[in-house]
Amino acid sequence: MMKAIILENNKLLLEEVEKPLRKSGESLVKVTMAGICNTDIELTKGYMDFSGIPGHEFVGVVEESDNKKLIGKRVVGEINAGCGKCDWCKKEMERHCPERTVLGILKHGGAFAEYLVLPDKNLFTLQEHVTDEEAVFTEPLAAALEIHEQINIGKNDSICVIGDGKLGILITLALSLTSKDVTILGRHTNKLSIAAQNGAKPFLGDNLNRRFDIVVEASGSPSGWKTAINLVKPRGIIVLKSTYSENLDFNPAPLVINEITLVGSRCGRFAPALYLLENRKINPKPLIQKTFSFDTFKDAFQLAQSKGALKIVLQFD
Amino acid sequence: MMKAIILENNKLLLEEVEKPLRKSGESLVKVTMAGICNTDIELTKGYMDFSGIPGHEFVGVVEESDNKKLIGKRVVGEINAGCGKCDWCKKEMERHCPERTVLGILKHGGAFAEYLVLPDKNLFTLQEHVTDEEAVFTEPLAAALEIHEQINIGKNDSICVIGDGKLGILITLALSLTSKDVTILGRHTNKLSIAAQNGAKPFLGDNLNRRFDIVVEASGSPSGWKTAINLVKPRGIIVLKSTYSENLDFNPAPLVINEITLVGSRCGRFAPALYLLENRKINPKPLIQKTFSFDTFKDAFQLAQSKGALKIVLQFD
Repeated sequence: MMKAIILENNKLLLEEVEKPLRKSGESLVKVTMAGICNTDIELTKGYMDFSGIPGHEFVGVVEESDNKKLIGKRVVGEINAGCGKCDWCKKEMERHCPERTVLGILKHGGAFAEYLVLPDKNLFTLQEHVTDEEAVFTEPLAAALEIHEQINIGKNDSICVIGDGKLGILITLALSLTSKDVTILGRHTNKLSIAAQNGAKPFLGDNLNRRFDIVVEASGSPSGWKTAINLVKPRGIIVLKSTYSENLDFNPAPLVINEITLVGSRCGRFAPALYLLENRKINPKPLIQKTFSFDTFKDAFQLAQSKGALKIVLQFD
Repeated sequence: MMKAIILENNKLLLEEVEKPLRKSGESLVKVTMAGICNTDIELTKGYMDFSGIPGHEFVGVVEESDNKKLIGKRVVGEINAGCGKCDWCKKEMERHCPERTVLGILKHGGAFAEYLVLPDKNLFTLQEHVTDEEAVFTEPLAAALEIHEQINIGKNDSICVIGDGKLGILITLALSLTSKDVTILGRHTNKLSIAAQNGAKPFLGDNLNRRFDIVVEASGSPSGWKTAINLVKPRGIIVLKSTYSENLDFNPAPLVINEITLVGSRCGRFAPALYLLENRKINPKPLIQKTFSFDTFKDAFQLAQSKGALKIVLQFD
């Protein structure tokens, strides 16, 4: 048995449940740290109709595996587990396999528990100098870096990131390594200054009289969509990073008239994210607002949902 | 003075008005034929808040010009007239110049009149064997070909065009020259068979159990948007060709989760369109449903607005 946080009927409860069953080719991982993501908050509002154990940002130690080299290793893990047979899986794009499960999001018990199970090939061993507090950002940083896999970004491209939430900040830190002209729009001076670490220009509010080659919508709010359309140049690109449960109400004519390209962007590969963390190109630690023990998860979720919250992490004994 | 169809307060009236004034670098063109486009219908419903002379698909003869070589020539003309100074104009992308006027759509009297004025450099002289009935399709065919300028299309890419309206048919005819796997969804067998001329597969209805690399939304209706999202593969591309006055109500999460790219697409360059018409690669003539004289424009517009209408053209004496 193990302790786990269960989401049922939009409520979170701490319960004793069976340990997840490890199949051949999978590892059983003892979770040491887990981050609360906005997606977890959206799940509690009904997004994805998920019930079960949420949580997909984690660091852990492999306890059981057919791959003996993994046992005892500190790891992080990619959250999409594919069928292994389809064209997507063959291209190592399990994140689009139609039969995939997604850790803590889709048909796969998540990281807010003492144990989780993932395929061996999803796991990445951590270098010793990368702390748990850094490594827990691998998943959201990979999501930030996914933008690089989808569109070409030049060092002179002007970029605007909308939203100074955790993902917006990570995206800003990452894109500032490529472009010299990154602006982040937000509502919190403390967050904006974290985002500006790598040279980005912070801007309080959204009333900016400028147009950009690339706009990244990471505000997590439908209003960010309208801001994005106002800020992008004709023939420019809007990258959509936010998922939320509400509908949008909008007229698509400006997209057509100005020939805007809109790129939906979700999870990314862990390898480039780990490279940046290992080589200290990105410092995510100022993003951690508070660490809670597993037993005080209710306080943790309450703080994570409060306005302006930064990253809240759960630590396991 | 000249006869012109004027749009005012969402009504069309035939009036005697001043001929448009030709500035240096512009030509005065006597219109011989003009096509009614869905955008003209949308203008009468309030789209673009346009008042004045609509009409942007035309064939004419140059009557006055500083460029003596143009005088007496049969021409078609690109509809966007730029400031000539900005970065867009320098790249020959007047269609995105922020100061542009657009023939019959934006601050520029259009082609439903005896005369129109356009910059000399917007005009393209027609080869003798290209008839007015073919040449009047240069503008919508250029809009169809714009897709080629925005995205890469391979001969094995699967493509679905939604909508068997005039633009959907032209897009299907054009894309069938590149891809061997084009499907068109529509509601009219006669139109679908015109669209299938170059090898596309027609499909009646929208209940198609297949996913495509590229989906072109050209239905002109908000329902086409939902069909497009259902028909596109993960990581696929939706090209948005329709502009309409209504808003859309939709949840963007599927775009993000499946990492869809949405590309707004509008006007295109005339040169590739004329090349296809001159070399008989595209035969648009079956698209003409009926030709009306200028004086019977009310009947022409009524028929153009009727369900299932094909291209209606106005002919001038």
